[in-house]
Amino acid sequence: MSVDGAAFDAWMRAHQALAERALEQVLPAAGHAPARLHEAMRYAASGGGKRVRPLLAFAAGELVQAPSERVALAGAAVELIHAYSLVHDDMPCMDDDTLRRGKPTVHVQYDEATALLVGDALQSLAFQVLSEPTPGADPARQLEMVRLLAQASGSRGMAGGQAIDLAAVGRTLDVTELEFMHVHKTGALIRCATLLGALCGRGLEEAERTHLDRFAKAIGLAFQVVDDLLDAEASTATLGKTAGKDAEANKPTYVTVLGLRAAKEWARDLRAQADEALAPLGPGAARLGQLADFIVKRPF
Amino acid sequence: MSVDGAAFDAWMRAHQALAERALEQVLPAAGHAPARLHEAMRYAASGGGKRVRPLLAFAAGELVQAPSERVALAGAAVELIHAYSLVHDDMPCMDDDTLRRGKPTVHVQYDEATALLVGDALQSLAFQVLSEPTPGADPARQLEMVRLLAQASGSRGMAGGQAIDLAAVGRTLDVTELEFMHVHKTGALIRCATLLGALCGRGLEEAERTHLDRFAKAIGLAFQVVDDLLDAEASTATLGKTAGKDAEANKPTYVTVLGLRAAKEWARDLRAQADEALAPLGPGAARLGQLADFIVKRPF
Repeated sequence: MSVDGAAFDAWMRAHQALAERALEQVLPAAGHAPARLHEAMRYAASGGGKRVRPLLAFAAGELVQAPSERVALAGAAVELIHAYSLVHDDMPCMDDDTLRRGKPTVHVQYDEATALLVGDALQSLAFQVLSEPTPGADPARQLEMVRLLAQASGSRGMAGGQAIDLAAVGRTLDVTELEFMHVHKTGALIRCATLLGALCGRGLEEAERTHLDRFAKAIGLAFQVVDDLLDAEASTATLGKTAGKDAEANKPTYVTVLGLRAAKEWARDLRAQADEALAPLGPGAARLGQLADFIVKRPF
Repeated sequence: MSVDGAAFDAWMRAHQALAERALEQVLPAAGHAPARLHEAMRYAASGGGKRVRPLLAFAAGELVQAPSERVALAGAAVELIHAYSLVHDDMPCMDDDTLRRGKPTVHVQYDEATALLVGDALQSLAFQVLSEPTPGADPARQLEMVRLLAQASGSRGMAGGQAIDLAAVGRTLDVTELEFMHVHKTGALIRCATLLGALCGRGLEEAERTHLDRFAKAIGLAFQVVDDLLDAEASTATLGKTAGKDAEANKPTYVTVLGLRAAKEWARDLRAQADEALAPLGPGAARLGQLADFIVKRPF
């Protein structure tokens, strides 16, 4: 590993730890009534995953000298939304998955009704976290962050993307339709994480915001393409979730639509688009570039 | 009907119409992609129910001369949370109900996966509505409203109440445990609706806020006691949802725990507590008193 690689790796581990600690802090104590629900919320949201969304928030926060404890809370809010979506996605009426991050999914470990409520309550908690009074923060800015997260989560964001995904099962999609789905399903929340991180610091200029969003959009898509490649190629053990589910469920993926080779090419193209968007943001955006490398270069 | 009764009736119908219009305004157009999800969201949230929560917001708003268009949006946000909770509650893994407000429930009319996403997206939309920039509104106050709604909806509010309810099936509860459940399951959102309505106007003094919350807490419980009485006595046709479900599901209710007669007595007691709480708020609270009568005197 290069010196830069080692430095990024240390940064990543330190900030993953900050993200875990923020989640730990905002999740209700497992012993607090209703104890089973709170225990299941912690089961769903604690100690797992790469915390890509909080990492994007931290990296974007570095662009604008944002205080890291504030970014950690914004990142935690986004991660709570992500965690709720995984819990609901895994349920029998959706993907019917039994394994997630190497552990039984919430409805398997607990029961379906609890999984439903865990997801619902994690979503509420995300908005509670963003709306807590924060010393030194501008309430109007906080309100904007709430609105961005609500839009990114809702029917014109992540939940809408899930609906498009449902409708696509068994159909043949072209690459434009596939992109439309992913821009909503995973892209919206990734863009939101990046923007929320940046909103924890000095105000962004209009042009900066546009570049940052263009970066996040490219990375969000790249993330999905890489996910599809991983799903197609990796084994269940490496992945920590059931591999090959997409093909089995007859779901269109970048691999099924473009083929393996073109999908890899497309991931690299998106990485280049992300780099282009970062260039005008100057050296403060270096961490975002390193993180983009990490996201796109996951082994496959 | 008395002159007062007729006047209240006219007020109620006018404000139910305002509540419907606000929901109409904030729900995404049914034709907008993803169309099936948006159509199902409208199916779940439009044109049904007595809109008790928005009415409480309007009545509390009158206490503080709140602009009714602002209250209408706050009431719509609470109603979206209520609507989402009904959609998820009705699902097979929860109450498994097929009829709601005289129509097939969302998972029957559409499918389970869509019902799950409808609930999720309605919740996001509620927070989006509360966080929209509002001319003349104080962002710090808006942020407080977001926080109150998130708390009332989450694991220490409504979703927590559902979890307690799940755990209670088949168990014998005493009246204290039953109250603990309902304070969360339905009470939290009713109190929130009342408080949000009042937060749309001039600032409340500490004592006023305490009285108002005591009123809302009593009414929230009364509402549930009356619901249990209705469920025990009314026919499915009158109720617009499957009657007798609670007894059938072996769920503890005020009727099963206290008996019919004592449950009716308890509803009247709670109504008296609500009146006591209103007294110090003066004539501006008259509408809240009329609404309390309406809530407790529903025919049973």
